[in-house]
Amino acid sequence: MGSPGAGVGWGLLDYKTENWALLAKKGYQEQDPDPQVSVITKLKGVSVTQIEELGNRLWDVADFVKPPQGENVFFLVTNFLVTPEQVQGRCPEHPSIPLANCWADQDCPEGETGTHSHGIKTGQCVVFNGTHRTCEIRGWCPVESGAVPVKPLLLQAENFTLFIKNTVTFSKFNFSKSNALDTQDPTYFKLCRYDPRSSPACPVFRIGDLVAAAGGVFEDLALLGGAVGVHIRWDCDLDSGSADCRPQYSFQLQERSYNFRTATHWWESSGVEARSLLKLYGIRFDILVTGRAGKFGLIPTLISLGTGAAWLGVITFLCDLLLLYVDGEAHFYWRSKYEEAKAPKRTAHPEQTELVPAPPRPAFQGP
Amino acid sequence: MGSPGAGVGWGLLDYKTENWALLAKKGYQEQDPDPQVSVITKLKGVSVTQIEELGNRLWDVADFVKPPQGENVFFLVTNFLVTPEQVQGRCPEHPSIPLANCWADQDCPEGETGTHSHGIKTGQCVVFNGTHRTCEIRGWCPVESGAVPVKPLLLQAENFTLFIKNTVTFSKFNFSKSNALDTQDPTYFKLCRYDPRSSPACPVFRIGDLVAAAGGVFEDLALLGGAVGVHIRWDCDLDSGSADCRPQYSFQLQERSYNFRTATHWWESSGVEARSLLKLYGIRFDILVTGRAGKFGLIPTLISLGTGAAWLGVITFLCDLLLLYVDGEAHFYWRSKYEEAKAPKRTAHPEQTELVPAPPRPAFQGP
Amino acid sequence: MGSPGAGVGWGLLDYKTENWALLAKKGYQEQDPDPQVSVITKLKGVSVTQIEELGNRLWDVADFVKPPQGENVFFLVTNFLVTPEQVQGRCPEHPSIPLANCWADQDCPEGETGTHSHGIKTGQCVVFNGTHRTCEIRGWCPVESGAVPVKPLLLQAENFTLFIKNTVTFSKFNFSKSNALDTQDPTYFKLCRYDPRSSPACPVFRIGDLVAAAGGVFEDLALLGGAVGVHIRWDCDLDSGSADCRPQYSFQLQERSYNFRTATHWWESSGVEARSLLKLYGIRFDILVTGRAGKFGLIPTLISLGTGAAWLGVITFLCDLLLLYVDGEAHFYWRSKYEEAKAPKRTAHPEQTELVPAPPRPAFQGP
Repeated sequence: MGSPGAGVGWGLLDYKTENWALLAKKGYQEQDPDPQVSVITKLKGVSVTQIEELGNRLWDVADFVKPPQGENVFFLVTNFLVTPEQVQGRCPEHPSIPLANCWADQDCPEGETGTHSHGIKTGQCVVFNGTHRTCEIRGWCPVESGAVPVKPLLLQAENFTLFIKNTVTFSKFNFSKSNALDTQDPTYFKLCRYDPRSSPACPVFRIGDLVAAAGGVFEDLALLGGAVGVHIRWDCDLDSGSADCRPQYSFQLQERSYNFRTATHWWESSGVEARSLLKLYGIRFDILVTGRAGKFGLIPTLISLGTGAAWLGVITFLCDLLLLYVDGEAHFYWRSKYEEAKAPKRTAHPEQTELVPAPPRPAFQGP
Repeated sequence: MGSPGAGVGWGLLDYKTENWALLAKKGYQEQDPDPQVSVITKLKGVSVTQIEELGNRLWDVADFVKPPQGENVFFLVTNFLVTPEQVQGRCPEHPSIPLANCWADQDCPEGETGTHSHGIKTGQCVVFNGTHRTCEIRGWCPVESGAVPVKPLLLQAENFTLFIKNTVTFSKFNFSKSNALDTQDPTYFKLCRYDPRSSPACPVFRIGDLVAAAGGVFEDLALLGGAVGVHIRWDCDLDSGSADCRPQYSFQLQERSYNFRTATHWWESSGVEARSLLKLYGIRFDILVTGRAGKFGLIPTLISLGTGAAWLGVITFLCDLLLLYVDGEAHFYWRSKYEEAKAPKRTAHPEQTELVPAPPRPAFQGP
Repeated sequence: MGSPGAGVGWGLLDYKTENWALLAKKGYQEQDPDPQVSVITKLKGVSVTQIEELGNRLWDVADFVKPPQGENVFFLVTNFLVTPEQVQGRCPEHPSIPLANCWADQDCPEGETGTHSHGIKTGQCVVFNGTHRTCEIRGWCPVESGAVPVKPLLLQAENFTLFIKNTVTFSKFNFSKSNALDTQDPTYFKLCRYDPRSSPACPVFRIGDLVAAAGGVFEDLALLGGAVGVHIRWDCDLDSGSADCRPQYSFQLQERSYNFRTATHWWESSGVEARSLLKLYGIRFDILVTGRAGKFGLIPTLISLGTGAAWLGVITFLCDLLLLYVDGEAHFYWRSKYEEAKAPKRTAHPEQTELVPAPPRPAFQGP
């Protein structure tokens, strides 16, 4: 905007500031913010439950992980209510269900049902137990008891281990990295545990530690279930080399209550279909992987330099404002900056005295 | 680009316009466009089916939701074809299968199979029924009948209810919100239904209403199945307070046909493995949650103001173009804008008469 | 920055370059980068396995796809280890488990277990086989054998076919498209295979071809399992018409090892709970759909033109730098560009000789 000579000199001085910003924010790099992601999970451990309906029963990974496929979302059973060997038939509804309680048959319209009912009313009012009479329903019998569990049945789940194998691929740079050590030793992952300093490439976590890291107490969460988010973050500077490209793990408690019902079906020798109904309480783990990688690229560098140059004009303007209007010595700067230039001869337009910008002097300008 | 005094005066006038745009687009806010999301779903209801193979059978949530874990994607069974008690053996292929029909054994090469076959050909051509002869296959027998259902068997599913518990966490602002009322009353969710005005914090939806909102007819969709997308959108202005941060629900019909096969396996007393094959038709619900939150931030405000200032130069240039070349009074503006300035003495370069920009006059300039 | 007349003339010349860039990068279009996506998958095929524990057994889609719902992620079983008819009881631990081997009872502390154990130690050291003695455990018995498979049992899975039905909806433009031909012919998809030229609307893929396209060898991957990513990319220019809006398919090998355990439970006539434990090896397919659509929009066009105009100033500055300082003829350009302008009369500031930019001459300027 003034003398190009002085302007460029000043501009080069300013480029040092710009370059610093360029380097700090990695404006010189191509970015790939959307890696392809693959997650495989595997839980290990056993827990013994002792309840009247099932006796002394050991639960292993084929029992307590739903679904079993080892994907990025899975449910770990920590507690349950079982109604074993239900068959289709007629039985009293549970008193806790809306409109289940009755005194006589006319309180139970035949065919009536509600979204919370266990079946369709038969029209009869029958004895449920010593204190309640409820409408008889047709459905899976006997109905679920509705008892709230008092302590988690699979308390040992706190000591189970979770192995998370995660591979990210930044296709823009044809670069892949896994979070697990590439080793031929079959016992490495059986014995190691994750530690960001001593074993960062061993993604084996104790369940109790995960829940604690998310801010929860395992025994509380295990009673009625919950949900824990696991966030794996990759931020890779490929100019530094692939060894520095390591994931960060963070955990977040998302829900403090989680249960669902499932059943095992089979056919009895009588030809009758039977099922075992389970109300499972547990902790759902949601593994989310995000990542980005950057690598030096000529085009982003040029664009950043160009953007920086474009901003010089704005900063110059703002600094002028400050110096000319805000600063106490403004009148002095004004005179230094602007000189009167008189036109060489009078023309038809009398207003000849105009302000023409003086060449910028480094002492008074610059961002 | 001319007199800074008049330029700044004009610039301040323009800042009013810029500020309006800044406010309207919330350019003064920090944005978090990527919340962590947790979804738990729960279906309730019962439906009775009456078919020859299974008799009178009640289906409840442990029967009609696949998978049962209550995640953001689930399948609600509305219709099915059952082939109960299949065992591994030899039986006639179904005539609808390509290359199944035959006249004699040589039409059925032993070991041949196709992607649509139910098993491997044994080499014999056998009777299928009164009108067809088909190649005998080895596999799960008897083969599935291939009958297309004529009406949905779980028509009552229209009255089932779906409870969607959704929590979003904007980690940038350490802010969490759930779409469900935080209440100690255990019956609240048993009785309420979602309504954007009267009960916006009761995310309980009747299935028939969901399908209708997506533009489908439940009875049609229930016959051959389909897929419905549920989009939960959060747009939170945290400067207004968290009470205004509520989700919007929208529904979209994505597919008009959806079925898959699954089986229940058991071992008969004879030691033979048996299974019950089910071809399930139903509606898959895909719940997608997106959200963003904004809160006042100093840096975005400064950046927006700076960007606004940078644009002043462009707008000035464009307006000059309009006034100097497009407008009918252009010649007048030209003379007002530019004055001849003559060099004080002749030099070796005769072209001394140059146009020097006059100071901008507010009446003729500005966006 | 010089004579507006010549400047604008030159600017218009430059607009041709800008417009070309505008067109090439579709800066004139509104973009929708986030379609709603729906995926349904269906596998077809049969495979016979022959192993001692199960005899000659045919596997069909209800057996080898986990989970069966036909979503965008599914697991195709290619190999397995079965431990049929386990019941809860006492039996020797497997020697491969850490701390399982023993000489005498005191080597087996009662109640001890580890994350890799099959059960809880009873305190006794018993015979496992002719060569090993291991600690007795209480759990599902007999324990899994730990044998590594030598060849894939479901080798025929290479010839299975995968049908991927994918619908994308760009809600900004109210536009939907499916990757499958909209046909009434029920046999079309039974016979066709995907080909980008001859049958691009037939998304039926042979499993072996998918694995090969991902860079894997089916027989190797089928032995111990793996994971293959399928990426469906949509890039639709809605100004060209919807016929050109077709998906691109790409395949990527993500993992070379994948297995999980699952079990089938039933109740024996004795009232005892039994289960069949399966360690399944197979290929997990992860289908990811991304897409964007663009359509002419007035606002993006204006914004692009404005941005282009803003960049003119930067490019001008950079070219000046080049010509004035870098180029060999710089001194010549310097003299052409700048002329001495002497102030008409001497003032209190002696430095009157200033450089004033000459009007730019097209021959020496421009990006």
